[in-house]
Amino acid sequence: MTTVSLQSLNAADKAQFVAALGDIYEHAPWVAEAVCGRRPFATLAALHDAMAAAVRAAPADQRLALIKGHPDLAGKAARTNAMTSESKSEQASAGLDRLSEAELKEFHRLNNAYRDKFAMPFIVCVRRHSKDSILREFARRLQNHAAAETKAALGEILRIGALRLDQRVEAADRLKVHGRLSTHVLDTHAGHPAAGVAIELLELARHGEPRLIASATTNLDGRSDQPLIGGRPIPIGRYELRFHVGDYFTGRGAAQSDPPFLDVVPVQFAVAEPEGHYHVPLLVTPWSYSTYRGS
Amino acid sequence: MTTVSLQSLNAADKAQFVAALGDIYEHAPWVAEAVCGRRPFATLAALHDAMAAAVRAAPADQRLALIKGHPDLAGKAARTNAMTSESKSEQASAGLDRLSEAELKEFHRLNNAYRDKFAMPFIVCVRRHSKDSILREFARRLQNHAAAETKAALGEILRIGALRLDQRVEAADRLKVHGRLSTHVLDTHAGHPAAGVAIELLELARHGEPRLIASATTNLDGRSDQPLIGGRPIPIGRYELRFHVGDYFTGRGAAQSDPPFLDVVPVQFAVAEPEGHYHVPLLVTPWSYSTYRGS
Amino acid sequence: MTTVSLQSLNAADKAQFVAALGDIYEHAPWVAEAVCGRRPFATLAALHDAMAAAVRAAPADQRLALIKGHPDLAGKAARTNAMTSESKSEQASAGLDRLSEAELKEFHRLNNAYRDKFAMPFIVCVRRHSKDSILREFARRLQNHAAAETKAALGEILRIGALRLDQRVEAADRLKVHGRLSTHVLDTHAGHPAAGVAIELLELARHGEPRLIASATTNLDGRSDQPLIGGRPIPIGRYELRFHVGDYFTGRGAAQSDPPFLDVVPVQFAVAEPEGHYHVPLLVTPWSYSTYRGS
Amino acid sequence: MTTVSLQSLNAADKAQFVAALGDIYEHAPWVAEAVCGRRPFATLAALHDAMAAAVRAAPADQRLALIKGHPDLAGKAARTNAMTSESKSEQASAGLDRLSEAELKEFHRLNNAYRDKFAMPFIVCVRRHSKDSILREFARRLQNHAAAETKAALGEILRIGALRLDQRVEAADRLKVHGRLSTHVLDTHAGHPAAGVAIELLELARHGEPRLIASATTNLDGRSDQPLIGGRPIPIGRYELRFHVGDYFTGRGAAQSDPPFLDVVPVQFAVAEPEGHYHVPLLVTPWSYSTYRGS
Repeated sequence: MTTVSLQSLNAADKAQFVAALGDIYEHAPWVAEAVCGRRPFATLAALHDAMAAAVRAAPADQRLALIKGHPDLAGKAARTNAMTSESKSEQASAGLDRLSEAELKEFHRLNNAYRDKFAMPFIVCVRRHSKDSILREFARRLQNHAAAETKAALGEILRIGALRLDQRVEAADRLKVHGRLSTHVLDTHAGHPAAGVAIELLELARHGEPRLIASATTNLDGRSDQPLIGGRPIPIGRYELRFHVGDYFTGRGAAQSDPPFLDVVPVQFAVAEPEGHYHVPLLVTPWSYSTYRGS
Repeated sequence: MTTVSLQSLNAADKAQFVAALGDIYEHAPWVAEAVCGRRPFATLAALHDAMAAAVRAAPADQRLALIKGHPDLAGKAARTNAMTSESKSEQASAGLDRLSEAELKEFHRLNNAYRDKFAMPFIVCVRRHSKDSILREFARRLQNHAAAETKAALGEILRIGALRLDQRVEAADRLKVHGRLSTHVLDTHAGHPAAGVAIELLELARHGEPRLIASATTNLDGRSDQPLIGGRPIPIGRYELRFHVGDYFTGRGAAQSDPPFLDVVPVQFAVAEPEGHYHVPLLVTPWSYSTYRGS
Repeated sequence: MTTVSLQSLNAADKAQFVAALGDIYEHAPWVAEAVCGRRPFATLAALHDAMAAAVRAAPADQRLALIKGHPDLAGKAARTNAMTSESKSEQASAGLDRLSEAELKEFHRLNNAYRDKFAMPFIVCVRRHSKDSILREFARRLQNHAAAETKAALGEILRIGALRLDQRVEAADRLKVHGRLSTHVLDTHAGHPAAGVAIELLELARHGEPRLIASATTNLDGRSDQPLIGGRPIPIGRYELRFHVGDYFTGRGAAQSDPPFLDVVPVQFAVAEPEGHYHVPLLVTPWSYSTYRGS
Repeated sequence: MTTVSLQSLNAADKAQFVAALGDIYEHAPWVAEAVCGRRPFATLAALHDAMAAAVRAAPADQRLALIKGHPDLAGKAARTNAMTSESKSEQASAGLDRLSEAELKEFHRLNNAYRDKFAMPFIVCVRRHSKDSILREFARRLQNHAAAETKAALGEILRIGALRLDQRVEAADRLKVHGRLSTHVLDTHAGHPAAGVAIELLELARHGEPRLIASATTNLDGRSDQPLIGGRPIPIGRYELRFHVGDYFTGRGAAQSDPPFLDVVPVQFAVAEPEGHYHVPLLVTPWSYSTYRGS
């Protein structure tokens, strides 16, 4: 993905500006055009707010066209490779490009039911979701009235636009679209941070195997050098952290049973706020552990 | 399995006595014969001690014959249905009757290596073991010297005999061959035991799926009415307890995120002492939990 | 205190029966007289229920006389040694016999305010209370209307009667007037119960020094051989448990800092249900601990 | 205390330089004189290292004179107000200016015993100590041989010098003479940091009342805005944190018993490394809590 600086956007001519931001809203370069004359933008947030305001201020039929310009999730456009590259990579982020046959059928069924009821595609900001939570949203929103659903679709479009803009433009500020998932291992047997503990983060799914999405080894402060997830939303979904504490305590020569009472400690939890900070620490001895949503 | 009371054993004639206990030691009714004249036995422990002493006091060649009378683990006798019913149910308890092809090959390889080195079958009290720990024992004992290994084999035979006797004979006392695995769920959000929590206990294996071995729902005291494992050894191995706390807190109307931060809490641990008491409690709120080896 | 068996009460003549139970209700042998003819009582609970029913069924003026027969708390009868021996030992149990000058004045003030408003003495089952909670009850009940307060006073009289009866009569059953306070120390550094830990239980007061009410050393199961409080109500109030874990870990040779990070661990908590079971365990390493209301 | 910048020290003439740093080492302006010609010093650490090297390189009799130039702890110079202002404020920091009669006698006894054995005053960097730990050090070092004790005294003098220098000179760097004591309150009942919890930190003493040394209220992240102790060593000693969690949960409307099971939670711990980071968090619900040495 090519990025562009806020500074150069402020200095660009109109054609360049629209070329750079024309796909922030799907098939809707008119949004970029509408804000071009408002430059310069002091911050990325100001640029985003202007674009969002332009969307909200557009006539109803233009807003509806914007909605209808979006592809189905795991739909025909995806299968025939007819999506914008943005949509393609977004749908892939939630695993929609590798669904099982049963899941494809379920999406097909929901897409049809949704189009039958609302005459538009189901839109959700997939970077904030896992496969399971998309299906849950789908089922939930199918119950909406048309007016509420049009509003919901526009809300999701603004979220998609904000995420695309945040990734596209280099600026001193960032949009508030980032979550953070971090951990911390404290060795309460020895009274200090546990260094050198291997950790894996897996995304769980109702159906199908857990998917490894990050691994790390704790540093001297018992933390991973980087957050396990950062700089992007944490998809709503269920996760498992695996802490390899058996190897850690063996390496330290701590007295353990054979086999060790604790070996790999799994901690499963769900993320409900993609922009939230989830800190999930482990306090551990060879015989006990605690975990909690920390801060 | 037919059981018999200690009282009736004390009153039986010799033929009946030997018929009842002749298979406590594999293909070795002479053990029962040897102790028949020592009756009456005041306790089951006294009967066991007498039989064990008879084994230990037997001439070396008779002890060796006793060892050699045992079938291979997952060996030819098992495949051709030529084992005693005792051996058959013991091997099944550790899952040796449902090995994968790869596992069968591994047992075959180890059986051969063992017979080549020691000229006798590998004997282990399988009711105290899982598949994984048998393989670990196998590899470990292959390193032994012959004398140490003969001693180890006899030790296992005495353990097998004790377990068979404990199951066969009704008496006021029990032999010390039982472990206990229990749990306890405390709702530290509300400050009382968590009643109505669904719990599952699974046996884990290095290869293959977890196997459900017990399920329970906590009672008003936050415990299962019966120990999850009791009245028998706990096979050396790795286990997972699954606590369905999301449903519990939803049922109590506790404030949770959507989806709930905690839903099913998995706790994995290993058992190293089959006759030990493993108490593995959970202290839990919708946002935190602790577990430990308790008592 | 002399005790008497339920059996002998059932067999006694009326004079003996009334002599034995005449002071269960303060200066009101008519309660015992009223139930004498209902004998035999199968259980202590049945005897208690009969006596309580007799109190409730008495004419209003007799019930009022019963109320008025009680001494003030820390009042003139106490100072002049004019109380029944039952009242005397009850008031001493809550420390009313060793009040400071300021506290005596406070009781004096409240007694007068209460008598001015309700024309009767303030009655509370002091064995269920500490000094602090009596003062709190006193202030709270002073706000009552007369009818509610008469009902409250009778309720307390029935509690006093139940406790006296439970202590006086030997029977197979006990009345539900007992609480229990227990603890348990688990060494999560070593993975087993902590044996040999010195423990003290102190009663805390808003004013004045903590008062030692029990001490114990944990047994092999990490518990005290006897509950710290049992066989009686736990007075409503605040308590501190002190666990001498520094000495324990030093004795076990566990690595600690110098001075040890943890030495005496204080745990403060309040009891609100005198007949409840308060289990307050400690899970501890040289560097961490947890405590909670358990079961 | 007047401070001076490293920059101006580098620019000063010799007389000014020695005037500014002449009392970093007690009655020993020769240390400042010795390093004056080494200027400019790029960092405070470089200045400190040079001064420490000058002390170590001085002839034995000069080093001994330096040692002998120090006042007794709580000794005659203190009583007659004859100490340098630096020594005076240092001794006050550990409470040596407000000893009880018994403690004064104990110091008198130890000072005499020490002078009798070593013919010099007992020197310890009191800002790293509490009264109790000074007495412990005193008793321990009285057992030393003369050579070891001379070395120990010089080591303490260097620590005193480093602390005085760190406080006197403004520079971009700081010396490694600071510890930090912090806390963090996590509400595991609600799953977020506990804001608005009143906290007190007290220094405990073997004899005498606890002394309040810091109080704070937790901010939105559950922490105090400033470390409870920072920018200086944490005196070796025992401490108590008091967390007012009863008021906090009452303010949040959490269900509690009456009186609340937990009200003020005391956590007692010892500091052994004055330059260490002690993080002592509390994870708390109305019915449970955990604490540990964190990081």
